[in-house]
Amino acid sequence: MLPVFGHLNPDTDAIASALVYAHLLSRQGTPAQAYRLGELNFETPFVLQKAGVEVPPLLPALDAGTAVALVDHNERAQSAPNLADLQVTHVVDHHKLGDLSTMQPAFLRFEPVGCTATLLLKLHREARLSVERADATLMLSAVLSDTLHFRSPTTTPDDREAVAFLAPIARVRDVMAYALEMFAAKSDLGDTPAAELLRMDYKVFAFGDPALAQRWGLGMIETTNPAYVFGRQAELLAAMRAAKAADGLDGVLLGVVDILNGTNRMLVPGESEAQVVQAAFAAPTVDGVADLGDRISRKKQIVPALEQHFEAQV
Amino acid sequence: MLPVFGHLNPDTDAIASALVYAHLLSRQGTPAQAYRLGELNFETPFVLQKAGVEVPPLLPALDAGTAVALVDHNERAQSAPNLADLQVTHVVDHHKLGDLSTMQPAFLRFEPVGCTATLLLKLHREARLSVERADATLMLSAVLSDTLHFRSPTTTPDDREAVAFLAPIARVRDVMAYALEMFAAKSDLGDTPAAELLRMDYKVFAFGDPALAQRWGLGMIETTNPAYVFGRQAELLAAMRAAKAADGLDGVLLGVVDILNGTNRMLVPGESEAQVVQAAFAAPTVDGVADLGDRISRKKQIVPALEQHFEAQV
Repeated sequence: MLPVFGHLNPDTDAIASALVYAHLLSRQGTPAQAYRLGELNFETPFVLQKAGVEVPPLLPALDAGTAVALVDHNERAQSAPNLADLQVTHVVDHHKLGDLSTMQPAFLRFEPVGCTATLLLKLHREARLSVERADATLMLSAVLSDTLHFRSPTTTPDDREAVAFLAPIARVRDVMAYALEMFAAKSDLGDTPAAELLRMDYKVFAFGDPALAQRWGLGMIETTNPAYVFGRQAELLAAMRAAKAADGLDGVLLGVVDILNGTNRMLVPGESEAQVVQAAFAAPTVDGVADLGDRISRKKQIVPALEQHFEAQV
Repeated sequence: MLPVFGHLNPDTDAIASALVYAHLLSRQGTPAQAYRLGELNFETPFVLQKAGVEVPPLLPALDAGTAVALVDHNERAQSAPNLADLQVTHVVDHHKLGDLSTMQPAFLRFEPVGCTATLLLKLHREARLSVERADATLMLSAVLSDTLHFRSPTTTPDDREAVAFLAPIARVRDVMAYALEMFAAKSDLGDTPAAELLRMDYKVFAFGDPALAQRWGLGMIETTNPAYVFGRQAELLAAMRAAKAADGLDGVLLGVVDILNGTNRMLVPGESEAQVVQAAFAAPTVDGVADLGDRISRKKQIVPALEQHFEAQV
């Protein structure tokens, strides 16, 4: 069974795409099994329950040389700990190509669309395979989640078409109401410890000259209830400082995205981060918060601006 | 105009795929122009003449940040000299993924098939675009060339289907006769200097631990007339030794593939190469020649065996 998995700190797309791709590969003659690389956020259980699908198991340790399929990521820092020793045979992803290499020619499908599931739908249609209801629910939810129901600037016409195609199969009549239900589930953060909130959708990136690489932790909280998050601002800033020290990072930032308004107010834990945020985004930090306006996409807006800032430093 | 190009020392697939992909991208709304990264071999002019298509121009120097599309390769050592500074937006390839990375999410289409043109045909069919006669001739020729008319172990059912689909559009009634004509053109090496023969289909690979990387030059001559090549054995061995010294390589090998019999007798210029060939292929070198039997694919047989040999050395 070919293991199929998405990135660490999985979001709905990472989990849904692993499940759908494992099923597709199995139908196409390559028996495959979906795994996850961490705990679910608060949105994904809602989606799995709607789809009637079990939570995939945690990825076990894999022997060197094991063949694996990746979805929704390709960089080693976001993958299985020994990815460099595994044999990557398949990747479906919508991120920039990072430090992946393969031992043999492989199946790679990358397109600059809003969601990996949009590409998985294309794979079904190109193979002239019907889409089953559970898969449709998973893919529909992933597209709505990754694009924040088309509010994200990463949204493409292909993502909109995917939703229009999938909603009837998933028997979701009111897509807007369904998306709001999903986002409400995601926003119901309860008494989750601040350190966990920070890590829920968190990735480490290396910027600038590899020799002097700046390593930054970039978290995002996408919520319909930003007031709740800012009510816990002091705790979150403390958790960010702790993560920075524990992981030996050069900076940590946490974007708090108001899904419904499409705006991002970023938590900035220290003076050095504030200087970078000012330089990269021309956004001043006041009382630990920088207003990034409509820059809500880590992939398309936050990471490229930081990359450009640190490249210019070299 | 998006520049589209294949690898250095271009073969028929590198040229044909650049032309076909540039045309496809243009039809899909991204104006594109094919280029080449070196002189043509003796097969490609025959193919271009059959297709009624001009030789693409040499790639000019490109400014840093220029968007480019790659076909039939992805490694820096086989590409434009400043590839690391260019913005790769599209890649269609059937080789293993090497040291490529992209600045932004890109279109990547890799599959382990026998020829890049097989993937380009898929792209036409997925987009429901008709295939024009000139493009069909180019793709048909590329598939026949890269798979040695299905003799290469890299051949897949997709390549066979591509030929069956394309031949009627290209108005090639007798595919076998056409392939033989192509291979005869390729084999008509005339009085080409030995140094040029060596470089005609030649790639440099790095094997083993990057810190102690072994850099080897691996040439291939695919011919229906191996007797002609072995008639020039002394000259070729001298050219290989000169290339090794000039490029500071750890070894140079030249496979001489008898297309019609599907066999490979390799020129081995020195004792150190002979030891590696013995260890990696269990093939003794006698009078500068090692018989590799039916191991005719550099991509699928020669490179992996050398990779495995040097990995085991670490």
